[in-house]
Amino acid sequence: MALPTPEGYQAYNNDTIAGYIAGLPKIKDHLGGGPDAWTVNEVGDGNLNLVFIIEGPKGDICVKQALPYVRLVGEGWPLPLDRAYFEHAASIQERALALALVPEIFHYDPKLYLIVMERLSPHIIMRKGMIAGQIYPKFTDDMAAFCARTLFGTSDLAMPAAEKKALIAKFCGNTELCKITEDLIFTDPYMVHERNRWTSPQLDEDARKIRGDDALKRAVSKLKYGFLTKAQALLHGDLHTGSIMVTEAETKVIDPEFAFVGPIGFDVGKLIGNLLLCYFAQTGHATAADDRREYRRWIVAVIEGFWHGFQAQFIELWNSERHGDAFPPALFDGDNGLSMRQAQHSFMRDVFEDALGYAGTSMIRRTLGLAHNADLETIEDPDVRAACERKVLAMGRDLILQAQHLANIEAVTAKAVMADGLG
Amino acid sequence: MALPTPEGYQAYNNDTIAGYIAGLPKIKDHLGGGPDAWTVNEVGDGNLNLVFIIEGPKGDICVKQALPYVRLVGEGWPLPLDRAYFEHAASIQERALALALVPEIFHYDPKLYLIVMERLSPHIIMRKGMIAGQIYPKFTDDMAAFCARTLFGTSDLAMPAAEKKALIAKFCGNTELCKITEDLIFTDPYMVHERNRWTSPQLDEDARKIRGDDALKRAVSKLKYGFLTKAQALLHGDLHTGSIMVTEAETKVIDPEFAFVGPIGFDVGKLIGNLLLCYFAQTGHATAADDRREYRRWIVAVIEGFWHGFQAQFIELWNSERHGDAFPPALFDGDNGLSMRQAQHSFMRDVFEDALGYAGTSMIRRTLGLAHNADLETIEDPDVRAACERKVLAMGRDLILQAQHLANIEAVTAKAVMADGLG
Repeated sequence: MALPTPEGYQAYNNDTIAGYIAGLPKIKDHLGGGPDAWTVNEVGDGNLNLVFIIEGPKGDICVKQALPYVRLVGEGWPLPLDRAYFEHAASIQERALALALVPEIFHYDPKLYLIVMERLSPHIIMRKGMIAGQIYPKFTDDMAAFCARTLFGTSDLAMPAAEKKALIAKFCGNTELCKITEDLIFTDPYMVHERNRWTSPQLDEDARKIRGDDALKRAVSKLKYGFLTKAQALLHGDLHTGSIMVTEAETKVIDPEFAFVGPIGFDVGKLIGNLLLCYFAQTGHATAADDRREYRRWIVAVIEGFWHGFQAQFIELWNSERHGDAFPPALFDGDNGLSMRQAQHSFMRDVFEDALGYAGTSMIRRTLGLAHNADLETIEDPDVRAACERKVLAMGRDLILQAQHLANIEAVTAKAVMADGLG
Repeated sequence: MALPTPEGYQAYNNDTIAGYIAGLPKIKDHLGGGPDAWTVNEVGDGNLNLVFIIEGPKGDICVKQALPYVRLVGEGWPLPLDRAYFEHAASIQERALALALVPEIFHYDPKLYLIVMERLSPHIIMRKGMIAGQIYPKFTDDMAAFCARTLFGTSDLAMPAAEKKALIAKFCGNTELCKITEDLIFTDPYMVHERNRWTSPQLDEDARKIRGDDALKRAVSKLKYGFLTKAQALLHGDLHTGSIMVTEAETKVIDPEFAFVGPIGFDVGKLIGNLLLCYFAQTGHATAADDRREYRRWIVAVIEGFWHGFQAQFIELWNSERHGDAFPPALFDGDNGLSMRQAQHSFMRDVFEDALGYAGTSMIRRTLGLAHNADLETIEDPDVRAACERKVLAMGRDLILQAQHLANIEAVTAKAVMADGLG
């Protein structure tokens, strides 16, 4: 039995999508020719949506359409179509701030919950590249820029309060996708839940210890409370290496359907957490020919460079594009004054501690919760995988409980290196 | 030249309001008879609105209508009429949670931005009673209950996230009243601004020192950032002793037109700050017959009792009416378990520190900013007044800068008592 959908909605397939696209003159023109000359491929390998690649004689496009349920699970897990509305709205906002780091949007159809956008080619998902041990020279700076521009640009430092509150209100309806995060990241992994899974029996005892760790569960609950209440900036909301497409020359952030106004540290921390997880997965991908030591050094440099670049650019924007109501200039002695620099330092420190906490929760959920990462899943030997995962869990726990005591990002990477014998 | 107003709006006066009320059958019935038998008095002594008291043979009502400008200033300071919409919406929410502590609403007219409500009699504004040295035995418990019920009841502890986000969105439009707070409380008093005033020349040097206090201005800017971003609960938004009407037997909280979803500590702290300000004003009201020492002791007991009562009831509600998504029970060892008690302690400590900071900003703005309090304004001798105000400023500054180091509410009141030689 099909789930009810609003009037005018239909889910397209490889046979029907071209007919719809042919009715959009500009896009038809972009592709060249007509449907007969087009190749259509449904390539959605994500968990939620339909994704079509359409190639024509002149150009190509990517079409993303929301389904009324979680694709990975089926109709048993309904999910509101209007996540496409929020994804489109967030894409527009992100592109206005970070331009070339976000795919261009050609068309949005509110009745079909369908977005037509730039097709990224030959870009691949960053996570796949990292599993293959591929170095991306632009990644660090591009992601630092993406986070600094989108998070600063939608904060109370950049936006007058009335404009910022309108932004909050606009995304307040994206509650069901936020609830996925609230449940899968901040709740389920710390209790007995049918959705959880882990490398068993190797990690049974580790999972049991996490479920019994009261101090950890309090700290995670506090991070969840921050996720629910800190309306600091418009977040991408799911900023891991699976939401980033790369070539050696380009970085593009995709899939902002989890967007809402939340804590700045969540986006920053989710990315750092996923990079750390990837770091710990590397020994599982080592071969006789490549021990991955060099690649692990590169990941360490990425993590450090990303944080420093993000922080530096955020403060640069604070000094140059401050149009918001927070930290009014009249109360400070100019941008290069000591007091402003102290305020900025204290602000970034708060973001840093939040980010470490959120990084830690991202690492634990990918090891004990429902959705795992290919970084670890592709390690075939369960003993080898479990050994990597155990380090992920320990580091995640440490970040959550010790965020206040970690002086800087180098203290974080040093912990990772010490845990994984690279030093 | 009149400010433009929406179609259907007109501001009533003593001659025209009865005609409008006569068209509302239930309210006409409540008053008894018809307009000829009614007495109408415009009594608005607040800064913003028209307030009519209408008395009939059977009953009476209070009618509050928004004007399109700040009444205190005139048409030169326009203010959106829809604050009446937010006041009405907040009143309904508060009454659902705190019932008898909020006046009953009989009618709301969305085109006239007009609220018909219970007339409170013989209640007087709490601030007037405190200037007169009057003791109100119910005040402490009633305000603790009001704050605990309204703030808990609209928090993520009580409301599932989707419901809470809808509440946030609903009040996101009340930006112009929030901006009054942002400017008048968190910004103007710390800079040279034409709207500022203080007892001059006595406090000229004190005002100058505050304007030059970088550490203070950073801390205040951080509190402003919290006001802009911490979407914790639906606030009254202007909870001082001028927004509370009392008799010996009853307490009623009025005027929630500044309502929005903000930091829990703001409501709690504004009230504490106004009570401390009133405490320091007492020496200015002392006479040969009454040195106000006993009354000052009562105020100290009120401040301590209010915080303890608020905290205890908030936690009681947390244990008994937790329907929200924050701090999920599955992650805790039951309500009386050690971990839950530690989480609650940590949560209340955060609220406490926020509250002290917001208390401090309330005290400073009432001494150096645009809007002063009758507590101090009614002290005629400017030297005596300035001596009181200097203590208000010093205590306000201390609360903002030392919140983290004050162990409990008794440490706060001890500071006040030491500063004012009651001990």
